[in-house]
Amino acid sequence: MLPDDGALLLVGETYNTADGYYAVRCLFGDPIIFLDKGDGDSVLVCSDFERDTAAARTRAARTRGFQDYGVADLPSTLSDAARIAALTLNVLRAEGVTRATTTNTMPLSVADFLRGHEIDLVCQPDHFIPRRLIKGPDELAAIESVQRATEKAMAAAIGLIAGATVGKDSLLYEGGRAVTSERLHAVIDASLLEDGCSSEGAIAAGGVQSAEPHNTGSGAIRAGQPVVIDIFPRHRDLRYFSDMTRTVSKGKPDPEIARMYDLTSAALDHALTLIKPGASGHAVFEAVCRFYEENGCPTYLRENKMPKTGFIHGLGHGVGLDIHEGPSLGRRDDVLREGQVITVEPGLYAPGLGGVRLEDIVVVTADGLRNLTSFPRQLVV
Amino acid sequence: MLPDDGALLLVGETYNTADGYYAVRCLFGDPIIFLDKGDGDSVLVCSDFERDTAAARTRAARTRGFQDYGVADLPSTLSDAARIAALTLNVLRAEGVTRATTTNTMPLSVADFLRGHEIDLVCQPDHFIPRRLIKGPDELAAIESVQRATEKAMAAAIGLIAGATVGKDSLLYEGGRAVTSERLHAVIDASLLEDGCSSEGAIAAGGVQSAEPHNTGSGAIRAGQPVVIDIFPRHRDLRYFSDMTRTVSKGKPDPEIARMYDLTSAALDHALTLIKPGASGHAVFEAVCRFYEENGCPTYLRENKMPKTGFIHGLGHGVGLDIHEGPSLGRRDDVLREGQVITVEPGLYAPGLGGVRLEDIVVVTADGLRNLTSFPRQLVV
Repeated sequence: MLPDDGALLLVGETYNTADGYYAVRCLFGDPIIFLDKGDGDSVLVCSDFERDTAAARTRAARTRGFQDYGVADLPSTLSDAARIAALTLNVLRAEGVTRATTTNTMPLSVADFLRGHEIDLVCQPDHFIPRRLIKGPDELAAIESVQRATEKAMAAAIGLIAGATVGKDSLLYEGGRAVTSERLHAVIDASLLEDGCSSEGAIAAGGVQSAEPHNTGSGAIRAGQPVVIDIFPRHRDLRYFSDMTRTVSKGKPDPEIARMYDLTSAALDHALTLIKPGASGHAVFEAVCRFYEENGCPTYLRENKMPKTGFIHGLGHGVGLDIHEGPSLGRRDDVLREGQVITVEPGLYAPGLGGVRLEDIVVVTADGLRNLTSFPRQLVV
Repeated sequence: MLPDDGALLLVGETYNTADGYYAVRCLFGDPIIFLDKGDGDSVLVCSDFERDTAAARTRAARTRGFQDYGVADLPSTLSDAARIAALTLNVLRAEGVTRATTTNTMPLSVADFLRGHEIDLVCQPDHFIPRRLIKGPDELAAIESVQRATEKAMAAAIGLIAGATVGKDSLLYEGGRAVTSERLHAVIDASLLEDGCSSEGAIAAGGVQSAEPHNTGSGAIRAGQPVVIDIFPRHRDLRYFSDMTRTVSKGKPDPEIARMYDLTSAALDHALTLIKPGASGHAVFEAVCRFYEENGCPTYLRENKMPKTGFIHGLGHGVGLDIHEGPSLGRRDDVLREGQVITVEPGLYAPGLGGVRLEDIVVVTADGLRNLTSFPRQLVV
């Protein structure tokens, strides 16, 4: 944990800051202070009534309360932001630290306050990244458990579509009610919750909506149209994410959608053969772009402007305590390493018609990859 | 939206940054750039394939994509943090802005980069707070809808306890299975989900666990012991929170718990009479502390060290896009104003025995308050 140039300092809540949770391994909704002085000496400072609970869970060597650092003597006029800044300075002074590294978990106002009080604070936004990207056995097990939950939720959503009847209006019906994006979201959410996971922004977008990669979908699902289902939940206790996408159609879709699907499935297969330690993430992305272009699909590799049609996003991203982390299969020059967990998600989009995306999640192994996804690809259901 | 000293600049995701969502009114999982130049001229810059969706939803006058600010020309070796910093500088230069105010939504590494490139960036962490704290009609309606969902979830959890049978082992059973904190969490979560809400960290802590205010609870629930149920969900679309706590016991608890409950219920009633525009949040807190102390309960008003027994936390906090925001009913000198939404949550804790907390959520009105809570208080169920 010891950075090259002194102590490591983190300030903030830990529900939504991956670095904070990674370092502290304890969930706090309100800001805490974490100072790692190296050589196994670290202190977690939190509100006094969370102290005992925190001490039992955290990786920090010592756990202290704000009272130990003079919270009672601070002016009662201080804002929350000013209060945590003053407390952080008190901690650094009490611990004899004048130089520290931090990451983007650090609130800017706290950083400004510390620097104004002779603390030499250096922000290394990627300080934890090299370690966070290589997943250990516990982290892999966590991601795999989320992936199992993701597949169960995907099966529930696709089951609702597959089991529906097609009305004369071409809409899907199940149990006397129309199948909508909202119903698919509800089925996905309920299934995830049973497995201790939750999701913000799961996508179940049908028809022309599916041509917008981040449209979460709304309204009725129609027969013969693609439905892109992209589920990326987090385990509520373990805090790790997983991520998977499938595209289905109730009954045969437009032949162009079927062609886009077959190309995308082939693109996914091709990409999976290229992933191994030492491979360039950008090269894998480029290979998929070339494959698509050879088949007449625009990509943003060649176009100066992002096209609206074709393969219009990156090929994949790392997954861990953040849903989007490194390495990237895209523009960036990232070298893949054993232990990294990444998505592979080619897709094609045709505005006015619809979109297709297929996404697996894999871990890079010594000799290639292990696919953490075991869910079939099947367009027509 | 125009700060006193130039443009306003925000950088970051908007799911978990209240300022970001408040300014932009559009959910982004990955960082966006928002620049408000005042006089109604503002620009939201996001990834190109989110641009159309964002333009339809945001309050920003203009919506642009990263491509409009040269993302394609940035070195492919840049990290995510360096990339968004470079893009932000490009936006400021293109928009002719050299001075800007920001808040704690701004990543420190981006701030450092901008300041290193002759941008005069001032962090005002409380820039949005005065406006965010006064809730408009839409915001109040959102909070009230979450409160209705909270009460439904509370009723489901208490219903499980009340409807359980007491085994010879003093444990509660329902449907052949023990009633546990985990089952209560599941019942609460499922109910909230039906109403479009979700919760992280809802508390259902029984027996000695209830003596720790933030212990979320685990294991079997026993008859004759207090169960503190504290539910503080967020609406997944509207993004506002609500917050309520009740304490129940299946069958008669220890007389000391019953006394703590009656005192706490009286403390809540007393506090509710004191809340009105112009009142000091600290004075309301002090009044409750005095009431408890007159009845022999320690509080952290008088003790030098935070006690472990008695009233050991603040009396309340504002609720809105953050679950904990101003004004505070506690140490801080906050003056209450019409339109603020605050919790009132006295509680007493006895280590080794259990705890009691009762929490309502209210809005400050011209002549006092309107209680947004309509849920009974009843210890024995």
